[in-house]
Amino acid sequence: MERREFLKKTGVAAVAAVAGTTIAAPAIWAQGKTYQWKMVTTWPPNMPVLQVGAERFAKRVEEATNGRIKIQVFAGGELVPPMGVFDAVSAGTVQVGSGASYYWAGKVPAAQWFSSVPFGLNPQGINTWFYSAGGLQLWEEVYAPFNVVPRPQGNTGVQMGGWFRKKMEKLEDFKGLKMRIPGLGGKVVSKAGGTVVLLPAGEIFTSLERGVIDATEWVGPLHDLRMGLYKAAQYYYYPGWHEPGTCLEVIFNKKEYDALPKELQTILDAVAMETNMWSLSEFEARNGEALQELITQHKVELVKFPDELLDGLRKLAKETLEEEAAKDAPSKKVHEAFKKFKEQIGVWGSISENAYYNVIADKYSLKG
Amino acid sequence: MERREFLKKTGVAAVAAVAGTTIAAPAIWAQGKTYQWKMVTTWPPNMPVLQVGAERFAKRVEEATNGRIKIQVFAGGELVPPMGVFDAVSAGTVQVGSGASYYWAGKVPAAQWFSSVPFGLNPQGINTWFYSAGGLQLWEEVYAPFNVVPRPQGNTGVQMGGWFRKKMEKLEDFKGLKMRIPGLGGKVVSKAGGTVVLLPAGEIFTSLERGVIDATEWVGPLHDLRMGLYKAAQYYYYPGWHEPGTCLEVIFNKKEYDALPKELQTILDAVAMETNMWSLSEFEARNGEALQELITQHKVELVKFPDELLDGLRKLAKETLEEEAAKDAPSKKVHEAFKKFKEQIGVWGSISENAYYNVIADKYSLKG
Repeated sequence: MERREFLKKTGVAAVAAVAGTTIAAPAIWAQGKTYQWKMVTTWPPNMPVLQVGAERFAKRVEEATNGRIKIQVFAGGELVPPMGVFDAVSAGTVQVGSGASYYWAGKVPAAQWFSSVPFGLNPQGINTWFYSAGGLQLWEEVYAPFNVVPRPQGNTGVQMGGWFRKKMEKLEDFKGLKMRIPGLGGKVVSKAGGTVVLLPAGEIFTSLERGVIDATEWVGPLHDLRMGLYKAAQYYYYPGWHEPGTCLEVIFNKKEYDALPKELQTILDAVAMETNMWSLSEFEARNGEALQELITQHKVELVKFPDELLDGLRKLAKETLEEEAAKDAPSKKVHEAFKKFKEQIGVWGSISENAYYNVIADKYSLKG
Repeated sequence: MERREFLKKTGVAAVAAVAGTTIAAPAIWAQGKTYQWKMVTTWPPNMPVLQVGAERFAKRVEEATNGRIKIQVFAGGELVPPMGVFDAVSAGTVQVGSGASYYWAGKVPAAQWFSSVPFGLNPQGINTWFYSAGGLQLWEEVYAPFNVVPRPQGNTGVQMGGWFRKKMEKLEDFKGLKMRIPGLGGKVVSKAGGTVVLLPAGEIFTSLERGVIDATEWVGPLHDLRMGLYKAAQYYYYPGWHEPGTCLEVIFNKKEYDALPKELQTILDAVAMETNMWSLSEFEARNGEALQELITQHKVELVKFPDELLDGLRKLAKETLEEEAAKDAPSKKVHEAFKKFKEQIGVWGSISENAYYNVIADKYSLKG
């Protein structure tokens, strides 16, 4: 039996110091118990930053633990269906999952606030809430009954408002508009009189091109460019009021996580936080490049949603969130905490990031 | 000789698998070579987020390595003077340092671009540059001749513009103004006709209160509140054009870093990146709270620098940066890369974060 095989089976490394013997220092970390884990994700294979980020997480964990934790990653559908990720981790079928918390809204209504809500926190806002204002503890509370431990693992940045085949001048223009927009954003569009259409990713482009739908949101310039949406609709609207900084999650089966020695828990947590930062940085850099390509090569027309239209959507979003919050006690608790934090950080944001952005804005404005 | 002591002296753990014996799995990570390191910082003892962040880094590294790397942290002056940190790490007197790269401008002019420059990148902008657009590789290049490896370890967020005893209406109001503002910001103020005064932290409050200086910048609401600056000057200006997102660094002696096994390098890198995210989140949350206190309890008058004044400063900042870039080849290279990246990310920022901030801004505006 080889040493590694033996260690895997018994989980034991007996360490004996051979006094008086001089041996070249081994550059490897002596092994304790090892863990062969599986991770299932909600993303298609090779999806930039999202599936790639989940794979990066697994690779970094293996490197940092010198192989003590090896995580085999399965894209959506390869082992369990994309929407089965939470249940698989909850049941312990697999040890790890990766996705976004709003996918579990049907089962865990309060989960929605931990990804993104319309007119909610921006990327650094939600990170600040998680790490320095109690948000992550609330998230842990909400997932604990399901035997799941959550960690932020990425962020899409402020998303784009979507691709429209007609100009949007006022809130009333949503009346009768057929738009592919899932989740809370969809509920808001529906309140505005739109017809919300749910489509799998593979059918979005064709449906938009053929006019089966009038509009769709997707993610941001990077992913929208890859899907070719600029060929199917003329107007590219901003900002993405419905998802202003969507947090992606890595989730662990709680029993498996709790059973780890402290140092391995710390490594999982550190690598999750590192991947969160990496993911937002990748999204920003690649979105910046893709936007240039959309503007210069594909002559895409960027349009800002009119202020009045946004004001109207914001009122409807507020109603939607209050309705969602009334669904159960955890949702109410999370909604109240989220609102309170948003209120406070908003004042600071308005005189720091926002004020600074406005100073440098003219230089970068698309008008010149 | 105890096992740990033996390992420290020889750097060797001979691992023998005791086949056929069943032992309860040890919950600890078997030890390889251990490292007893020292870290010196540029910060006063207990300085919120900054010194606290350096200590957090050391603690997390010890946890993640299960004690294989132990880092003893010394605040500024405890082992070496604050401005001696870079040299101590470069010479190998200590293995680790923590500070901000612009402190080393006298020795390494190109280092300035890796902390913050006037009218430069905001916090996520500089992180994106480092992690996803080649910035960190450039930084490594610039420090390599000094035997130093840099990693971003924190970010102050957009700083405040400073405390002024008189209103600033136009660029000409800087003429004859005595202001404590170090670094590139100071050079810009000097170009505008101001008299730049350099003072140690302990003398800032008294100097401002007695009118020895007319104005000072410090950090942001959290640190400014603690220093009591609201008692010494009436007007609190924003935004901090001179430091719009200052990156803090952790630096390693290159020989020590390179000699580590791969898994320990990965842990240092992951914990540095985690601490970077933690630091900005802490700054944002605590600045948000401190700002509320300044406004509600201390009735501080917040004032935005007039646009024209900022335009004037921006022109002078551009001149200043071009002059600095001309100092040596590395500075020129870094400056050009920084400018190019800033230009590209600026367009994306203007339709994502900036546009979204402006949508939610009215709700949080200080006017009501």
